[in-house]
Amino acid sequence: MSRPRETQWRRHGRMVVVQQTPFDPATWDAVESRLKRDEHGLLPAVAQQWDTGEVLMVAWMDPEALRRTLATGRATYWSRSRQEYWVKGDTSGHVQLVRSVRLDCDGDSVLLGVDQVGAACHTGDRTCFDADVLLDLSTDGDPA
Amino acid sequence: MSRPRETQWRRHGRMVVVQQTPFDPATWDAVESRLKRDEHGLLPAVAQQWDTGEVLMVAWMDPEALRRTLATGRATYWSRSRQEYWVKGDTSGHVQLVRSVRLDCDGDSVLLGVDQVGAACHTGDRTCFDADVLLDLSTDGDPA
Repeated sequence: MSRPRETQWRRHGRMVVVQQTPFDPATWDAVESRLKRDEHGLLPAVAQQWDTGEVLMVAWMDPEALRRTLATGRATYWSRSRQEYWVKGDTSGHVQLVRSVRLDCDGDSVLLGVDQVGAACHTGDRTCFDADVLLDLSTDGDPA
Repeated sequence: MSRPRETQWRRHGRMVVVQQTPFDPATWDAVESRLKRDEHGLLPAVAQQWDTGEVLMVAWMDPEALRRTLATGRATYWSRSRQEYWVKGDTSGHVQLVRSVRLDCDGDSVLLGVDQVGAACHTGDRTCFDADVLLDLSTDGDPA
C-alpha cells in the first residue's frame, strides 16, 4: 500500500487538509502477489461512481489490466468475449476517470471509484443495473 | 420482471406514494433464463448498503442462491471454497436483509441492495474493501 499523502487545499477561503494515497509503481509486485485470480487469471471489478455511490457495472481484470488502471487513471478491463484489453470509453467516449482503487480482504475482487463520463452501460443507461429490477422494496420512508 | 406495486403511506402527516416491485415467484423461470453463468455455474454478486451506497462485498451466486435470496429476503451465496450455500450472517449474526435485487444488462452479475447488520467483512471491517487501498484520490473538494 502506498503511503498516504497530506495535501492542503484552500477551499471557500479555508484551508482544508485532505489525505490522498497515490499509487506508487514500486509497490506493484507486492500488490500483484496479493491478487487471487480465477483459473482464467481474472477477478471481478466493480465500478462505482465515486461521489454518488451508484454501482455502474461489473467487469473483469487480469493483473495487467489492474496495473494499467493504476498507472493511467483510466479504467481498463479484460474483455472475456473479445479476449483483449479494453479501455472503458475508448470507443464510446464514456470514459471512467479513476479516483480510487481498492482490493477486497481476500484479494479476489477490485472496487474502482470512478468519475463516469456519460452512460456506463452500452445500452445507453446510466448503469448496467438500471433495466432489470428483480425486486425493489427500497423506499426513502417507512410505514408510519 | 414483476409488476411495480404502488403503496400509499402516511408519513409526517402527508400521504406518500411509493412504487415497490416485489418478487413474483411465477416469474422465476424467466429470470433464470436470463442468467449467464460462468463454467462453474456462478455469477458475481455485489452487495451494497441500500441507503449509504457503500459497496460491502463481492460474493458468488448460482441460480439457486439467487432464487433463495429472492424468496427469503436474506442474502444467500455459493461458497466456492466450501462448495455449499451460505446464508450471510447465519454464523456471525451479520445478516444482510435484502431490499433490492438487480440483474445487469448481460445477465452475468447481480447487484443486491441490502441492510447490513454489523460488519460485512469477516475481518470485522464494515466492508471488505476498507483495508487494502491501492489508490485514493477521492476528496470532497477540488483544488481552488
